[in-house]
Amino acid sequence: MLSRPFLALGFLLCGLSFVELIFTAADATISDENWQGFLLAAVISGLFGGGLVGAFWNAASEKRFDLRSGFILTALCWTVFPLMAALPFLFSNLGMSFTDALFETISGITTTGSTVLTGLDHLDPMLLLWRSVLQWIGGVGIILMAIIMMPFLRIGGMQLFQLESSTRSETSLHARPIALINSIAALYLVLTLLCAGAYAMAGMSAFDAINHAMTTLSTGGYSTHDASLGHFDSAAISWTAVLFMTAGALPFMAYLKSFSGEPRAFLQDPQALPFLGFLAVISAAGAVMLAGMDDGGDALTRVALHVVSIVTTTGFAGEDYQLWGAGFIGLFFALTFIGGCAGSTSGAIKVYRFQLLGIYAGAHLRRLHSPSIVQANAYGGVKLDSEIGLSVLAFLALFVGAFSVGGFALSLTGLDFVTAMSASATALCNVGPGLGEIIGPAGNFSSLPDMAKWILTGLMLLGRLELFALLVLFDPYFWR
Amino acid sequence: MLSRPFLALGFLLCGLSFVELIFTAADATISDENWQGFLLAAVISGLFGGGLVGAFWNAASEKRFDLRSGFILTALCWTVFPLMAALPFLFSNLGMSFTDALFETISGITTTGSTVLTGLDHLDPMLLLWRSVLQWIGGVGIILMAIIMMPFLRIGGMQLFQLESSTRSETSLHARPIALINSIAALYLVLTLLCAGAYAMAGMSAFDAINHAMTTLSTGGYSTHDASLGHFDSAAISWTAVLFMTAGALPFMAYLKSFSGEPRAFLQDPQALPFLGFLAVISAAGAVMLAGMDDGGDALTRVALHVVSIVTTTGFAGEDYQLWGAGFIGLFFALTFIGGCAGSTSGAIKVYRFQLLGIYAGAHLRRLHSPSIVQANAYGGVKLDSEIGLSVLAFLALFVGAFSVGGFALSLTGLDFVTAMSASATALCNVGPGLGEIIGPAGNFSSLPDMAKWILTGLMLLGRLELFALLVLFDPYFWR
Repeated sequence: MLSRPFLALGFLLCGLSFVELIFTAADATISDENWQGFLLAAVISGLFGGGLVGAFWNAASEKRFDLRSGFILTALCWTVFPLMAALPFLFSNLGMSFTDALFETISGITTTGSTVLTGLDHLDPMLLLWRSVLQWIGGVGIILMAIIMMPFLRIGGMQLFQLESSTRSETSLHARPIALINSIAALYLVLTLLCAGAYAMAGMSAFDAINHAMTTLSTGGYSTHDASLGHFDSAAISWTAVLFMTAGALPFMAYLKSFSGEPRAFLQDPQALPFLGFLAVISAAGAVMLAGMDDGGDALTRVALHVVSIVTTTGFAGEDYQLWGAGFIGLFFALTFIGGCAGSTSGAIKVYRFQLLGIYAGAHLRRLHSPSIVQANAYGGVKLDSEIGLSVLAFLALFVGAFSVGGFALSLTGLDFVTAMSASATALCNVGPGLGEIIGPAGNFSSLPDMAKWILTGLMLLGRLELFALLVLFDPYFWR
Repeated sequence: MLSRPFLALGFLLCGLSFVELIFTAADATISDENWQGFLLAAVISGLFGGGLVGAFWNAASEKRFDLRSGFILTALCWTVFPLMAALPFLFSNLGMSFTDALFETISGITTTGSTVLTGLDHLDPMLLLWRSVLQWIGGVGIILMAIIMMPFLRIGGMQLFQLESSTRSETSLHARPIALINSIAALYLVLTLLCAGAYAMAGMSAFDAINHAMTTLSTGGYSTHDASLGHFDSAAISWTAVLFMTAGALPFMAYLKSFSGEPRAFLQDPQALPFLGFLAVISAAGAVMLAGMDDGGDALTRVALHVVSIVTTTGFAGEDYQLWGAGFIGLFFALTFIGGCAGSTSGAIKVYRFQLLGIYAGAHLRRLHSPSIVQANAYGGVKLDSEIGLSVLAFLALFVGAFSVGGFALSLTGLDFVTAMSASATALCNVGPGLGEIIGPAGNFSSLPDMAKWILTGLMLLGRLELFALLVLFDPYFWR
């Protein structure tokens, strides 16, 4: 049963090794700082990956790919792969501890963007690029997961987004949607190049433009500067970021449909327009609030940048919005939980779950006072039954449960209330910055105790895998 | 349709008027400070109540009492009754604003216990007694609601606790469980008297003992001293409080069963033992944490008092536990959401919903990886279906939604993050104290802006009525 997932992991690690070899060559050529580390990492990843491929080669002919294989493959990809991808940090000249190296890698691959590194402006450019590439890979990885794997695994209501071509049965993923994977990857690449071009035209250097394009499209938020986008202090760059962060948070299937003869795909998508409307309304309202203040110049640009950055779970910061007052602090904390559309790179709760909560809660209210009413609800053309409802509502309840337990556990490590709660939220929602002086938009995560970093690493993975894909592994029945 | 609820409200207000007349006489005799206010309130309540009784007298012969009547009666009892009960504060010599008077009354009747009054030690004793009586009435009111009305209305999974005698059909409450109401009221009175006796033996004055007994059994937490239980600084009083707060948070039906030939009722109750075990484990763990600190003397008494006070949603404070460190702040914030058992006076999420979340989430996980497994779950002898699951999970999702929206709205009024979030939690969960310097266990709610007080008043009602009993009224379909 386990053979295919391990074979897939083997191929993935061979790919990682290949990328690390490219970084070895580039680092040796350009900065000559960390090529030994990249090389060592490439060798280890290659040996481990090659070994897995050799050991499980027979599995390639297996036809059956069942639910358990899906869960195991998912878990392997998001735990073993980051462990290997952390090696270049561990072997670098930064002297990072294993905890820090893994934190930075998981934060990258989950497209969270919380960082333990400082002095980014003077870092080996190849390490900066490595961080950006991790987010970029993680971004396309989560899109593929969301479109192909999550609906198959029926995670947290994602069964709503099963592709219409009935290429899979209830318990077995038969099809190999290679064409779909290629289309998504190509689209992702094109959007990234467009973003890089726009950043360059707005005034970034080529290096900054490429890095930020990768971390914008993936809604990750790693920057090449400690001051994040604040380093550039440019309205053109801010609006470019707004545009492409939003692009990364829209449902990628709608893009594909748009390009293949369904020009109205975005209009018909149940998430896209409500999501765009929400961003516009919140940004406008926030701009009105900010414009009324002492230092309220350029309010719309400043508010839109941060509203879109937080809601899309990117986490870029142009300035410390905590200085705008208590109302904004509450706003940005609340926005942390929203998230973008399902089937995109963004994390957190996501638009469709709020819509479904509204539908199910409304139906429940109605049934309370009028039990005999017959109600038939649908979402995006799919009839809603009680199974989808239980799936989504259980997700919501466990999500806030994970946030609460995480916040409590962090406070036990000695973090103050604001830091603990906002760290739990920003990690679970894969956003990036928290609140307070330590981990706020002007701070970073380096000074947290190791135990807190491990808790946050776990929360980032838990959130990225929509809780259930990780939690099933802790069910003893899973292993029988 | 609306006649019976208004008739019931009329009787209730006549009862209120009668109690206020007693207070008029007592105040005139004892303190001679506010008898005019009590008298005026009694006249207004009496006129209004009497008018309703007269206008809707015909309804007494109606047999049918349907779901909508149930919702309307519930809403009337918990909004109009407090409006009337606020009059003695409004007409008192304290010069309270309408906002403050209503806040104090709703905080009392919902057994929350947040106060806007200071200088309690020197207040007219009849006003202090009025606050305690409000909590005491609210406490027995919520027990009756939880045992008789909520299961009938099928609110938030409370249908699990339908009484076995099938005295009601799907849409009509036929029985008049007068005998049940009398038994519960008698039990509540006896427990209160026992508590008062124990407080007196532990060293309280008769007046303090009676007041605190009423606010302990109701898990309300109003005190006659600004320093709350800290005023007494007595281990005997602390443990008396622990004992009777716990008694108030246990399911009252289990008491009745114990006294009527089912001595093992508490053992068989699905909530009672897990709840007691939870209190014991958390108190012990907290005591170990506190004992290791500088000022860790008498740790078990101090921790148990506050753990039980917060979990039972009482809110008594013996000291400012925020000084014990970040871990304790996180702990007490998390405990705010727990609550006691369903069918008791305590608020918040309550034990059985956590148990059901565990059952449904576990079943969901199992179905994810093994869709063909047949699962049959039960709770307290009731078979669990997807309707109960949707009911409980929708409650949980909306509960945290209400907490988040409340916290965000409070931050818009200018409250800092800690104050806003903890105020939202403590109001929605009907606990009492929040976190931070302003509304923490050593502070009070008097300095909050009026808008914040109104938001908190709404949250207290929303939490007390388990969200749905209030939210149905906002469904346009309800009124068709």
